[in-house]
Amino acid sequence: MKIVVHIDDAAQWQAAFAEALPQATVLTSDASKEERKNADYLAVWKAPEHLLQEQTQLKGIINLGAGVDYLLKTPGIPSDVPIVKLRDAGMGELMADYVLYGVLHFYRSMDHYASQQKSTVWQPHDVPEKAQWPVGILGLGAIGRFVATYLSQAGFPVLGWSRSPKEINGVRCLHGDDGLDELLGQVHSVVTILPDTAATKGILNAERLAKLPKGASVINPGRGSLIDEQALLDALGDKEGAGHLRGALLDVFCEEPLPVDHPLWQHPKVIVTPHMAAPTPLHEAVDQAIDYIKAFEAGEVLATVNPNTGY
Amino acid sequence: MKIVVHIDDAAQWQAAFAEALPQATVLTSDASKEERKNADYLAVWKAPEHLLQEQTQLKGIINLGAGVDYLLKTPGIPSDVPIVKLRDAGMGELMADYVLYGVLHFYRSMDHYASQQKSTVWQPHDVPEKAQWPVGILGLGAIGRFVATYLSQAGFPVLGWSRSPKEINGVRCLHGDDGLDELLGQVHSVVTILPDTAATKGILNAERLAKLPKGASVINPGRGSLIDEQALLDALGDKEGAGHLRGALLDVFCEEPLPVDHPLWQHPKVIVTPHMAAPTPLHEAVDQAIDYIKAFEAGEVLATVNPNTGY
Repeated sequence: MKIVVHIDDAAQWQAAFAEALPQATVLTSDASKEERKNADYLAVWKAPEHLLQEQTQLKGIINLGAGVDYLLKTPGIPSDVPIVKLRDAGMGELMADYVLYGVLHFYRSMDHYASQQKSTVWQPHDVPEKAQWPVGILGLGAIGRFVATYLSQAGFPVLGWSRSPKEINGVRCLHGDDGLDELLGQVHSVVTILPDTAATKGILNAERLAKLPKGASVINPGRGSLIDEQALLDALGDKEGAGHLRGALLDVFCEEPLPVDHPLWQHPKVIVTPHMAAPTPLHEAVDQAIDYIKAFEAGEVLATVNPNTGY
Repeated sequence: MKIVVHIDDAAQWQAAFAEALPQATVLTSDASKEERKNADYLAVWKAPEHLLQEQTQLKGIINLGAGVDYLLKTPGIPSDVPIVKLRDAGMGELMADYVLYGVLHFYRSMDHYASQQKSTVWQPHDVPEKAQWPVGILGLGAIGRFVATYLSQAGFPVLGWSRSPKEINGVRCLHGDDGLDELLGQVHSVVTILPDTAATKGILNAERLAKLPKGASVINPGRGSLIDEQALLDALGDKEGAGHLRGALLDVFCEEPLPVDHPLWQHPKVIVTPHMAAPTPLHEAVDQAIDYIKAFEAGEVLATVNPNTGY
């Protein structure tokens, strides 16, 4: 069996795969084309076109992350090879901590205290009951469910939204366009953890941002395409205090790295982080990838990515 | 039975006491001196001297918070009246959320991202395993225990320290001077939740701050007196990147409000919050105070504050 790995720091992934599958030949994409050919599996994150196009007998592609948008958009991706993706290989907790940090940031007025500090203003603000601070999670895949449950356990009322109906203990699950409007109308923070698909592109547009209560905040650890960035800037207003929305914590952007002249960088109500909310933890990810390979080899029917829905 | 209440927004406390004890006369300290006299109980937070001095038949004083340093230092406090304090009337969770926010802030490099944002630098940093990120809690009273357990449940290794030996599930408890040195030598963040007493004044002095690993951070939601502020400033260095310590999240100060010309306000590695980490939640606090009053009335032996130790 031959496995070709493509990801940043691929050598450590190669070593982990080789240790778990001693009978396999595990290469990184730095190997020669001759060595790479006739691979059985690709285990990849943001693979170059040629790596996908040159293979002729692939049994499966393992996407080393939860988001498959990049892979599905790559020209030359074989249409007849099943694709699987990491479900939640430790990214759930990483993302949940990021989101909890963001929710606490606004819930505990840390944004106001930061601006007060600049003016040496000593003014405590009341802390509302958590019961009065509902949080909305858009996207209830493996990671979205984890984040929703985590926030619920932290004491916040959580409303979840997905395209199709879901049930999660402790989370009020809504779906469809009406469900989205209902959620947006009542949450203090909205968190976007949807996949990047044709149906989710710009899902938080000007109209939907306007449905959030005045003073609500936006947390996006998901995909940059989910938010209309100009609409978000308009809703935030052009200076502190103004605008319908209170602030945003953003990890992902329509263009990454965020261009240096993009107004989000300098907006006083925006925290920009460089796509760091949920890096894939190596060991859990490799374990999951190995399980996929074993299942492929055993001829099991796997839940594969649907290129039409995009997840 | 007569109860006199003194605290900010006393009217809502008065109403809650009156509702719970319909047979009692409940007054705020705004009542006339004639009305206030011969009170059975004072339920107070930062009461003025005269309120303590004018009473002649008090059965007990209920401190409407966990810290009794202000009360014990008030001239004229009667020496023969038992004092009880709120143990943890919801302040535990408030303080735990504040501390978790601070730990996540440093653990997830949010301080670095904030300074990168100012320079439009897109550079993710590795997230270490939580197992590699021990946190130290100084002070294991009711609130310190709560915070220690909360952080442990969030996945961080927690070391706790108190003057006398304690045991807390999931927390490595140390005590004494040697225990303090051992804790300081290995934690990435140190959190101070000790009472303000003669023994804790300046407990984080220059010598002890130097024992923290390079790049450690300090979180103080406890009492301003616990940290030698000049020593902290020296350990932080005078600009970003320099200095033994990485940063500090500070809620309490030697002088409050923090004077406008104090260098902590403007230090780029310091977050200043205005003593907001754990305001006393009214309803839980009143319930606890009522329990105290009933126990006093029933002649039960209560765990009272010891003016000599100061807690």
